[in-house]
Amino acid sequence: MSTVAYCSFIWGSGYITARARTRTHRSLQKTEEQKRRIMSVLRKINPTLQRICICEQENLGRRAMQITRELKQGVKKPYKELVDVSIGDAHRGGMKPITFVRQVIAACIYPELLHDSALPADVKERAWRLMRECDGGSVGSYTEACGIPYVKSSVSDFITRRDGGVPASPENILISSGSQTALMFVLSLLVHGEGSAQTGVAFPVPTYSSFAMALDELGAEMVPYYLCEEEGWALRVEELRRAVRASGLHCTPRVLYVINPSNPTGNVQSRKIIEEVIRFAAEEKLVIMADEVYQDTVHEEGIDFVSYKRVLFELGPPYSESVQLASFHSVSKGFMGECGLRSGYVELVNLDPAVMEQACKWLSAGSCSAVTGQIALNIMVDPPRPGDPSYTMYSQEVKFKKDTLTCNVRRVQEVLEDIPGFTCQAVGGGFYAFPRLHLPQRAVQRAKELGLEADLLYCTRLLEEEGVCLEAGSSLGQKEGTHHIRLCLMTSTKTLEMVLKRLKRFHLRFLKEFA
Amino acid sequence: MSTVAYCSFIWGSGYITARARTRTHRSLQKTEEQKRRIMSVLRKINPTLQRICICEQENLGRRAMQITRELKQGVKKPYKELVDVSIGDAHRGGMKPITFVRQVIAACIYPELLHDSALPADVKERAWRLMRECDGGSVGSYTEACGIPYVKSSVSDFITRRDGGVPASPENILISSGSQTALMFVLSLLVHGEGSAQTGVAFPVPTYSSFAMALDELGAEMVPYYLCEEEGWALRVEELRRAVRASGLHCTPRVLYVINPSNPTGNVQSRKIIEEVIRFAAEEKLVIMADEVYQDTVHEEGIDFVSYKRVLFELGPPYSESVQLASFHSVSKGFMGECGLRSGYVELVNLDPAVMEQACKWLSAGSCSAVTGQIALNIMVDPPRPGDPSYTMYSQEVKFKKDTLTCNVRRVQEVLEDIPGFTCQAVGGGFYAFPRLHLPQRAVQRAKELGLEADLLYCTRLLEEEGVCLEAGSSLGQKEGTHHIRLCLMTSTKTLEMVLKRLKRFHLRFLKEFA
Repeated sequence: MSTVAYCSFIWGSGYITARARTRTHRSLQKTEEQKRRIMSVLRKINPTLQRICICEQENLGRRAMQITRELKQGVKKPYKELVDVSIGDAHRGGMKPITFVRQVIAACIYPELLHDSALPADVKERAWRLMRECDGGSVGSYTEACGIPYVKSSVSDFITRRDGGVPASPENILISSGSQTALMFVLSLLVHGEGSAQTGVAFPVPTYSSFAMALDELGAEMVPYYLCEEEGWALRVEELRRAVRASGLHCTPRVLYVINPSNPTGNVQSRKIIEEVIRFAAEEKLVIMADEVYQDTVHEEGIDFVSYKRVLFELGPPYSESVQLASFHSVSKGFMGECGLRSGYVELVNLDPAVMEQACKWLSAGSCSAVTGQIALNIMVDPPRPGDPSYTMYSQEVKFKKDTLTCNVRRVQEVLEDIPGFTCQAVGGGFYAFPRLHLPQRAVQRAKELGLEADLLYCTRLLEEEGVCLEAGSSLGQKEGTHHIRLCLMTSTKTLEMVLKRLKRFHLRFLKEFA
Repeated sequence: MSTVAYCSFIWGSGYITARARTRTHRSLQKTEEQKRRIMSVLRKINPTLQRICICEQENLGRRAMQITRELKQGVKKPYKELVDVSIGDAHRGGMKPITFVRQVIAACIYPELLHDSALPADVKERAWRLMRECDGGSVGSYTEACGIPYVKSSVSDFITRRDGGVPASPENILISSGSQTALMFVLSLLVHGEGSAQTGVAFPVPTYSSFAMALDELGAEMVPYYLCEEEGWALRVEELRRAVRASGLHCTPRVLYVINPSNPTGNVQSRKIIEEVIRFAAEEKLVIMADEVYQDTVHEEGIDFVSYKRVLFELGPPYSESVQLASFHSVSKGFMGECGLRSGYVELVNLDPAVMEQACKWLSAGSCSAVTGQIALNIMVDPPRPGDPSYTMYSQEVKFKKDTLTCNVRRVQEVLEDIPGFTCQAVGGGFYAFPRLHLPQRAVQRAKELGLEADLLYCTRLLEEEGVCLEAGSSLGQKEGTHHIRLCLMTSTKTLEMVLKRLKRFHLRFLKEFA
């Protein structure tokens, strides 16, 4: 597909328009008098917040919570249990936590357990080690705002090992309440200006919806570049160049956001692509924000995750000395799936020391992230080693999770290939499948009449009729005229089978209804 | 003191000027070439962050961490251990955690413990109850962005009980990663505009330094009102009126921040004062932000904490129906002192439903706060009851902490009264003492020569010579020509005695040196 053809894709058929539409749609339910009153009240608050409009996907999420409550209250539905695989939450999907993680946190929280003979010696040693790093020996004390120095060191060692010896340094690591907080922090540092000086942030389409909301909130200019579905959702540098160059006419592109392995597409970038992206960022003087939270979950055989940091350093000068990079990871999206503990980190590379100093000053005005999360992060980057009492169990649990995910990936592709109206690109990594829906024209027409995107109508009906909550492609961004759904595969086998059974039943009924 | 006299106080001798001065001071250490390069780099980042300048107090904090490292490395100092009572961190100060809190969290984190006969039945019941509220039965799942509905309900019930039956509702409760996050959230909602439309936020002087930094970051106009030291640091409504009315000439005052019991002064507001403040806020149409995180720690006999919410409702209409109020509480600053778990809440009262809706939409775009913190919050607002297996131990532990704090308050006043050069107003509540320092003119002169506030010179010397870290009054704001120190009293008796011994020794030496 040529660059010109890419240019003709219309951005905005996705969540941005959906959000504007929601606003209109909901307003219709209010009287003119009510609307006037609301507007006069809203004028008194921060205008950025006045703009915020919930997307239909969030309404879907709210409806899912409501249905769960109704089921608890005994309301009759065609199903007994709601299954929500709309977001990447492993434990919600029935995956179990890793025992070593939970044992160490429990021992730090309640040190009486250190006298309990049931806990393995390495659990106790790690708990002692971590508690020694806390003021007053308690996880109830504040830590330094950027995280416990010992945990930062362990993150730094992990990165060095992962990247085949490319050096890392604890001073460049900031620990936060999850990767999203760190992403917002780095964006806040870089986004400024108005008119042609306004910071442009290039990001892939599709991407998860809260990223675009963050850009909107910070006042960044959105510079979407489209991933190529036909090539397994590959990032193509010519499309990236087109998007960035075009945006240069009305803003100042400063940031390039990439996510590898990809949410939602499952694409895993090759070293060659990463090299091209880095060379491009160097040409255009863009800061690379590399979201690498799915780095632990590459399931395609023969493919390995390679970090942007590693490729950057292996490219050598001038790249390794000049390209500014922020790389993110998290305990939520790795094999641990500990979303509720809230922890992640960003490694900042090649940032000017003056900027780093300002960033640290800004951070130090805030509080630290939750210490329990910092402990989970320490274990993620420094797990039990061969010979340690917990090594066997830890390895088995991690392997079980990875195997389950790999099986789920195969299984979902197998099932969807067999149903008419689905095509699904290979899922190389990450937590999700993002199959394309080929819907009957009548269904698309019906959705239009209702003021909805067709995939959102599909997801809404699926939720009501079968109790399965998915994310609609329209809230993630997609080529105009295409429709997709995203489902999280980081679930137990049982959960996935339930989802697939209900999805298939609904899908065939839906196709028949609109045939 | 007359209103006119208040007007003549010069704001700016405190941390604002201190920050500007720091900038100049530090710049002097750099060559012109270095400065030019730094400025050219900083122009590329967010201008709000360019403005941020670390205050000397933070440099003191950094130096304290450095000294701790040096002591660990075996560097010889006149002391073996550094004691940091510069911030309100109970566990750092040697206070122990509450057993029931830690047992419940440990059981939720590592549910194997539910089969452990050593844990009391009510610990297990509470853990079961909380885990049932988590998706997949795991604290590793995301919760709703505003918190677990069950925890929000328990907060709402607590408020109703606390306020003698004044109704509260879970929909008005937002759970966050500590009260500071909630404060920033509410401020972000309210602060906007430029020039004469710029939001003015009235806040007491002295107040903790990160509050003013937050206002600066958000682009609010600072409207300082001075507390009256001579009257035990009382809030006087005539001074508040003076400050707000004067600010109306160059901005639009919209928010009134109060903190009760006060940080750093220890003043506890009477019902009469609160009534006056509410009537004033109603007159001026100000949203009240009531920081009530120290509500559990009132140590003066015969004085009770009364919440702004309660007084507002007991005033009746039109106040109870119109005055907008945000009230904050936290697990960090109560008797639990669980700073590292990161949890707090805000209750929003009389906010327009349209604004509430926008606030919830905005919040729902982010992630939840750490679940372990939410559990601690649940226990803070719904502790063991008489008859429960853990009741006796829980009550004893809470009583021990409260008694220790009350003793510490008495002890510090006793000791300081005996030393020349100190006056200390009665400390009615909260975590801190904020005594005034009467320093010799030669010490003030010496500080001036060094480009420092005199109390900062005092704290710096105290840190280096005796290994005690305090906060200087100049970083909290104070009347020009006065000097203060803040020390946290929520510590073990042993820690406090060590602080007082070293402080006294240093103080007498310092007075002698500059006599």
